[in-house]
Amino acid sequence: MNIALITIGNELLSGFTVNTNAAWIGNHILQVGGNIVWHQTIGDNKEEIHSSLNQVSNDIRAVIITGGLGPTHDDITAIALYEYTGDSPIFDEDYWESLQKRLTKRNLKLPEINRNQAMKPQKGNCIPNPVGSARGLHFKMKDKEIFVLPGVPREMKAMMTSSVLPWIKGHSSGGMTVITIRTTGIMESGLAEKLSEIIDALIDNIKIAFLPQFTGVDIRVSGMDKSAVEQKVDEISIQVDKYIYGHDTDRLEDIIGQMLNVKNLTLATAESCTGGLVGHRLTNVPGSSDYFLGGIISYSNDVKENNLGVAKSTLEKHGAVSGETAAEMAENVRLKLGSDLGLAITGIAGPDGGTDEKPVGLTYIALADGKETRVKEFRFLSDRKLNKNASSQTALNLIRIYLLNE
Amino acid sequence: MNIALITIGNELLSGFTVNTNAAWIGNHILQVGGNIVWHQTIGDNKEEIHSSLNQVSNDIRAVIITGGLGPTHDDITAIALYEYTGDSPIFDEDYWESLQKRLTKRNLKLPEINRNQAMKPQKGNCIPNPVGSARGLHFKMKDKEIFVLPGVPREMKAMMTSSVLPWIKGHSSGGMTVITIRTTGIMESGLAEKLSEIIDALIDNIKIAFLPQFTGVDIRVSGMDKSAVEQKVDEISIQVDKYIYGHDTDRLEDIIGQMLNVKNLTLATAESCTGGLVGHRLTNVPGSSDYFLGGIISYSNDVKENNLGVAKSTLEKHGAVSGETAAEMAENVRLKLGSDLGLAITGIAGPDGGTDEKPVGLTYIALADGKETRVKEFRFLSDRKLNKNASSQTALNLIRIYLLNE
Repeated sequence: MNIALITIGNELLSGFTVNTNAAWIGNHILQVGGNIVWHQTIGDNKEEIHSSLNQVSNDIRAVIITGGLGPTHDDITAIALYEYTGDSPIFDEDYWESLQKRLTKRNLKLPEINRNQAMKPQKGNCIPNPVGSARGLHFKMKDKEIFVLPGVPREMKAMMTSSVLPWIKGHSSGGMTVITIRTTGIMESGLAEKLSEIIDALIDNIKIAFLPQFTGVDIRVSGMDKSAVEQKVDEISIQVDKYIYGHDTDRLEDIIGQMLNVKNLTLATAESCTGGLVGHRLTNVPGSSDYFLGGIISYSNDVKENNLGVAKSTLEKHGAVSGETAAEMAENVRLKLGSDLGLAITGIAGPDGGTDEKPVGLTYIALADGKETRVKEFRFLSDRKLNKNASSQTALNLIRIYLLNE
Repeated sequence: MNIALITIGNELLSGFTVNTNAAWIGNHILQVGGNIVWHQTIGDNKEEIHSSLNQVSNDIRAVIITGGLGPTHDDITAIALYEYTGDSPIFDEDYWESLQKRLTKRNLKLPEINRNQAMKPQKGNCIPNPVGSARGLHFKMKDKEIFVLPGVPREMKAMMTSSVLPWIKGHSSGGMTVITIRTTGIMESGLAEKLSEIIDALIDNIKIAFLPQFTGVDIRVSGMDKSAVEQKVDEISIQVDKYIYGHDTDRLEDIIGQMLNVKNLTLATAESCTGGLVGHRLTNVPGSSDYFLGGIISYSNDVKENNLGVAKSTLEKHGAVSGETAAEMAENVRLKLGSDLGLAITGIAGPDGGTDEKPVGLTYIALADGKETRVKEFRFLSDRKLNKNASSQTALNLIRIYLLNE
């Protein structure tokens, strides 16, 4: 089903607000069998709304409009739509009473100015708002349906989910299945090589896209035939299994948490260049206190020596950014905090501080379990933020691989 | 100057890519005297590109088109534009040679398939690409200018900055001045009350907008008259001075870094519920090693007691989430790491772990300087991520206020 999207708002045109609504709507519609084929953003202006609606082509079955609805707006969108569809608003006494009752419970009085929220179309319908007081509008015009929703993301999403997406699903022949395979530790070109046979043999009903980021490459598999998509995901997984840490919205820290829980192991961190980012990510997971004991952020050399117990001679001989220092950091944080595993990161995040011998981006990551200590050297980039992200991802992946093989 | 924006890409319509380009373009154009008044997103399709260009209204002086340009695309955008403008591509021998020379230096050979990157319009011009090999296109059609750029954000931004924005600036009567005042520690309603006189007295040439986030409220002041905007910013600053930590893209961690540097003070952190986020933010600032020594992430009670030296009796009597524990954490991390200031955060991040007495969101933040220890209690929200963000922001703001008054 072809669908047009019109997002209304001067804030969107001026770029003060990034249009995340459009992406959310496009993505969710795809999964219930619709396709946004045309999207226009215009200002809060009646004439522009009319002109935009006039530009919607004949092969469009439904139009979704967001923005310019609700108590803080001048309701330009509603007025424009009533005019355009030849409908007219009437006062909804029942809804007005229910609104007042809701507020009376909280000892508040509804200002008269909010009466426009109780208007409803004479011919069209209202779209219920499960999380707010401003309702949406649903008009029918010739062979097109027009859905009008607020621009507030929370309200828009709730109303899409409860009303518009089910309507699309009910009127289309089946949604697209999209599965994202999340990998790390391999570049896009490496994946493409390992998957070349699968990609070459693809027929039209399945699409594969590589989505590279600095923390890993996502592989998106999509198609209308659910079981064909799932089968392709299985084929890919066999080829590049060891780089896959999860699917769809899985985060590496979630996966590691589950693995540590299953193996009943605890973890402590010693972070230098990442400055606490690994600890922050680990504790983004609810329940992480079950396996994450804590860590030492040894940003200065004094803290590495005095609080983490890295030998002065190691620091002097090999430097703070060295495999030797990383190893001692990992071993010592494990002993000091009493954890099963100790993870350490030391590197030159940049933009300054690099030398010819030790350039910005050089990073050592170590993992100690009391029996052995694994140390790996990495050469990341020149950007501080990207280096911290890449280091934290690589460090977490090192734990994942360790736990896989244990 | 009224400008239309056409962004091309199936990935944008399907919502797999959020259209951050549009916001960047809208925002930067505003500052050189342009206005995006109409924005359309369409698929990679020649007919749709033509139909979109036909819908551009007469009051538009320039059209910016992004996407569908470059070696990985089928160059649909370029083909569509040549057809639409009645121009035709010719092979640019000079550019082809310079491309080949560039690659020869890196011992690479340019595949013949890349020859389309060396095409140039017969009547129109090429827009140089300072960071890549695919050039943009610039056509003139009746009274309109058409600029065609790649969709890759890095390349689009470089070409906008070096070519398109200067063109708009040269052809318009002056850009809008936008200054964002960044505040934290006060709600939107509090700001509105304190600024009510200023807001009531506003005349049309200045606009003020409140942009609330969980970490603070930004106040955006904008208008065409630069000195009037600056004067309004000064008036606002006098009223709400103590809540303002910076302007425009300033981050709280940048400001604190500058203040610590000026006062020649060092800082160490003891984090429980934030799990390393405060250290991570502090070390996002290049040069933070000048004042940030490191910290202890005392996520478990054992680490609080054994590594940070919080008294067992304090933990037993008052609990890990208490003002008493926060104070000891701050004092001890200061002593153990040898810093001038010790900052501590302990709280219940959620979603679980709350009780009636100590609900999710309850957080204690302490700052110790060796003479006194300030402890503050906060009640944040029920969401783990928001709680961590609010806690880290509030903790950094506590340092800012301390340093202001020192």
